[in-house]
Amino acid sequence: MMVKEYIDSNIQRFQDELFEWLRIPSVSADSRYKQDVRKAAEFLKAKFQEIGVDHAELCETGGHPIVYAEKKVNPSAPTILVYGHYDVQPPDPLDLWISPPFEPQVRDGKIFARGACDDKGQVYMHVKAFETMSRLNRLSCNVKFMVEGEEEVGSENLASFVRDNKEKLKADIILISDTAMISLDHPSITVGLRGLSYMEVEVTGPNRDLHSGVYGGAIANPVNVLCRMIASLHDDKGRITIPGFYDKVVELKPAEREALNRAPFSLETYKRDLQINEIWGEEGYTTLERTGIRPTLDVNGIWGGYTGEGAKTVLPSKAHAKISMRLVPNQSSEEISKLFTKHIKAIAPPTVSVNVIAHHGGEPAVTPTEGKAFAAAAKAFESVWGKRPIPTRDGGSIPIVALFKKELNLDTVLMGFGLDSDAIHAPNEHFGVKNFRMGIETIVAFHKHYAE
Amino acid sequence: MMVKEYIDSNIQRFQDELFEWLRIPSVSADSRYKQDVRKAAEFLKAKFQEIGVDHAELCETGGHPIVYAEKKVNPSAPTILVYGHYDVQPPDPLDLWISPPFEPQVRDGKIFARGACDDKGQVYMHVKAFETMSRLNRLSCNVKFMVEGEEEVGSENLASFVRDNKEKLKADIILISDTAMISLDHPSITVGLRGLSYMEVEVTGPNRDLHSGVYGGAIANPVNVLCRMIASLHDDKGRITIPGFYDKVVELKPAEREALNRAPFSLETYKRDLQINEIWGEEGYTTLERTGIRPTLDVNGIWGGYTGEGAKTVLPSKAHAKISMRLVPNQSSEEISKLFTKHIKAIAPPTVSVNVIAHHGGEPAVTPTEGKAFAAAAKAFESVWGKRPIPTRDGGSIPIVALFKKELNLDTVLMGFGLDSDAIHAPNEHFGVKNFRMGIETIVAFHKHYAE
Repeated sequence: MMVKEYIDSNIQRFQDELFEWLRIPSVSADSRYKQDVRKAAEFLKAKFQEIGVDHAELCETGGHPIVYAEKKVNPSAPTILVYGHYDVQPPDPLDLWISPPFEPQVRDGKIFARGACDDKGQVYMHVKAFETMSRLNRLSCNVKFMVEGEEEVGSENLASFVRDNKEKLKADIILISDTAMISLDHPSITVGLRGLSYMEVEVTGPNRDLHSGVYGGAIANPVNVLCRMIASLHDDKGRITIPGFYDKVVELKPAEREALNRAPFSLETYKRDLQINEIWGEEGYTTLERTGIRPTLDVNGIWGGYTGEGAKTVLPSKAHAKISMRLVPNQSSEEISKLFTKHIKAIAPPTVSVNVIAHHGGEPAVTPTEGKAFAAAAKAFESVWGKRPIPTRDGGSIPIVALFKKELNLDTVLMGFGLDSDAIHAPNEHFGVKNFRMGIETIVAFHKHYAE
Repeated sequence: MMVKEYIDSNIQRFQDELFEWLRIPSVSADSRYKQDVRKAAEFLKAKFQEIGVDHAELCETGGHPIVYAEKKVNPSAPTILVYGHYDVQPPDPLDLWISPPFEPQVRDGKIFARGACDDKGQVYMHVKAFETMSRLNRLSCNVKFMVEGEEEVGSENLASFVRDNKEKLKADIILISDTAMISLDHPSITVGLRGLSYMEVEVTGPNRDLHSGVYGGAIANPVNVLCRMIASLHDDKGRITIPGFYDKVVELKPAEREALNRAPFSLETYKRDLQINEIWGEEGYTTLERTGIRPTLDVNGIWGGYTGEGAKTVLPSKAHAKISMRLVPNQSSEEISKLFTKHIKAIAPPTVSVNVIAHHGGEPAVTPTEGKAFAAAAKAFESVWGKRPIPTRDGGSIPIVALFKKELNLDTVLMGFGLDSDAIHAPNEHFGVKNFRMGIETIVAFHKHYAE
C-alpha cells in the first residue's frame, strides 16, 4: 500500500482521534486546568503505545510532565528527535468563539478548536506519520518524541530536563512542526525565529482606590501614568526607546534583505484579511522585515480601575500591563529583560511606585539552510506540494530551538504546516483539514529523504 | 426630653436599622442587582411610614424608582426638600474588602459597608432626625424627601421627574447630605461642586486577536495606540490638551483663591494618608485649588488583551478606557463631552478605528454663602460641633444641584458629614459612628434655625 493511500483511507479516524485530544482543555497557564493538562499527556502516551513505539513515558518535572517516546529501527540509521507541545493557550475571550474552544468542529474545511494548530494538531501529524510508516513497514530513521506541556508558559522545566537527559535525547536533528507556511500555494520552511522577553508592570499610586471627584487632579492617576510610560516606549519612527535595546541587533546585508522580500506577500491581502486601513511599524523596513528580522514591543494586556458595566468614578490605586518584546539575533532575552526593567524604573515619575516582573523569555534563533536536513525537508515539501519551499523568517518564538543548539549541539528543521491566518492564541483557532492530511504525508517524505 | 438625649438613647436602634438597609446591595450600575435596588427603595418607604410622614410612595421612572415622602406641619412654615440617593457604587474589587461590603460591621468607631457614607448612611441621618423631631414634637418646617436610586449612574431619570413634578416638589430650600467635612475637628459646608463628563473610548485595530509574534511590529497594537492617545491628553504642566477645554472656565479672583487656601490643609498628612511620595497636578495651583476650582481628566478604568494569570502573547483586537472629566463653572457637560469626542477622533491614527460614547454627565454648581439657609446651616454646625463651619469647594459632583436651580429655581445647602478618608467608591467604605450621631443632631438644629 502506498503512503498516500494509507493516509487517505485512515484520515477520518486520525481526525477523530485528534478531536478527542482537543477536547481535553490542557491550558498550562491556568492552574485550574492542571488535571486536564496531565490528562492530555496521558492521552498522548497511550497513543504512542498504540502505534508501536519501543517505549513511552511521562517524565515528571517541577510543572507539567513531558511525554517521551522512542523507536529504535536500526543503529546505523539517523535519529530524528521530534519536539512539540501538548499544552494550549487560554481560550478567552470566550464570547468571541463561534463554536466552543474545546468542542472541535469542522467548518469550511477547517478544524476549529483551541490547539487545533498550536500545537496539538501539528504534533498529531507526527504521531500519525509514524503510524503510517510503521504499518507500511517504511520506518527508515530512529525516532524520539519529546512533547512538553509548558511551551505556552515559557518551557520553564524543559532546560533542566534537556540538560539532565543528554544521552536519552541524543539525535542527529530536531524536527519541529509549530510554525506556519506562507500559504497553501507556497510551502515554506522557517529558518529564523524571534526570541521573547515577557514582562509585567505594576504601577501603584495611592494606597487605595479613591473617588475621582475628591482626589482627581491633585494626585497622579496610576493608569494615566502607565499610559504615559507605555506611550514613551516607541518614538515617532516606531523605534523602541529603551536605551541599549538595539545594540546587539544583527543588521542583515542588503542581499539578505532582498532575498527575504522576494517571498510572496500582498499588502492589500494582508490589510483586507485584518480589516485595517493602514499598517504600522518601524520606519525603513517592510512588513516582512518588521516581523522577521526586527525586534518589537507590544502590550499584550492592560488593566486597571473599573472595567465593568456602566460608570464608576474611581481613581484606581493600581494599574497593570503585560508587555512583551520579540527579539532577533543576537539580542539576549535576559539582557533585554534587564534593560526593560531598568528603563521602566527610570521613567517612572516619583508620584508612583513601580514593580516589574519578568515572565518567561526565549532566545532568537536562526537555523541552517545548508546540509542534509534542510535538503530533505525541501525535497519532502516539493514531492507533496509540487513546489519548492521558500525559506522564511518567522515573527514568533520557539525558545527550544536555541536551547537545543546550546545544550545538545543540534540543529533544528522547522516544518510548519499552519497558516498565519489560523488565529492561534486567539478566538476561533483553526487548522486546515488539508494541511493536516498533507502535513502527515510531508513528514513521512522527510523521514524517507533524511535516511537517504 | 432633649434632642441629644433622644438621639443618644436610640442611637443603637438607629444604627441597627441602617445596617439592615446596608445589607441590601442596591448597586444601580449592575443590572444583576435590579431587584435589590427596588428592595432598598421599599425598605426606605416603609421607614418613612413608620416615622409618621403624611404620605410616602415609590415613584416609578424609566429606571430605578424614586422614594418620595412628605410631612406638612404648618402652611406658613418654610419647606425643606431633602434630596439623597439609596443606590450605591459597585463593590469591586471585592478581594480588598476587610469585611464583606454588604455585611456592615463596626470597627474603630466606624461603620464599614458599601453605602455606609455614600449615601445611605447620610440619608438615614435625615430619616432619624425627622423621627427625633416628630417624637419630641419639634417639627418646625414642612419636609419633603426625594431619594433616588440612580445617582451613581448619572441620575438619568431624575431631570424629567423634577420637570414633571414641579408642584409636588415646591419648597424653599434643598438640603443634601452627600458631601464631606474637612475633618472631625473642622465642620465645613460645601459651596461649590464640580460637574462631570464620563466617556468611554473603544479602539479597534485588527478584526481579531492576533499572535503577537506573527504580527507584532507590523501593525498598530490598539492598546499601545490607546496609551499614546491617553498620554497626550495632558501636557507637561498637567494641563488638559483638548482644544477649547478651558475656554469657559471661570478664573477666581486672587482674593477668592486666598480665601479658599485658608482652609486647614496639611500636605504632609494628605501624602501620608495616601502613602504617596509626591503629589501631582496642574502647574500654578494648590491641591485645594486643583480639586476645588480646576477641571481635571482621569482614566477610571482601562482594559484590553490578556489580563489573566501568566503570560499570553496576544496582540489584541480592541482596547477600552473609561475616562471622566470633572468640570467647573461655567463649563457645560454636554459641550465638554462633544469636545472630548471630537478631539479623540482627531488624534486617533489611521491605523485604528475609534468609538466614543458618553455616559452620564452633570453640571458644576456653586451655592450661595449668603441668605437664611447658609446662615441656619452655619449656626447648626456651630451649636453641635462648637466651631463655625468653613465654606469649601468640593471636587465631587452632585449634578442635581444645578438641575434644581435650573428647573425649580431653588438653592441648595450641602451639609455633608462624611470625611474624605471614608473611602467612598472604594473598598472598605466607612462612616464614623460619631459622624452619624452628630449629623442627626446637626440636621435637627438646622430645621430649628431655618424656621426661626
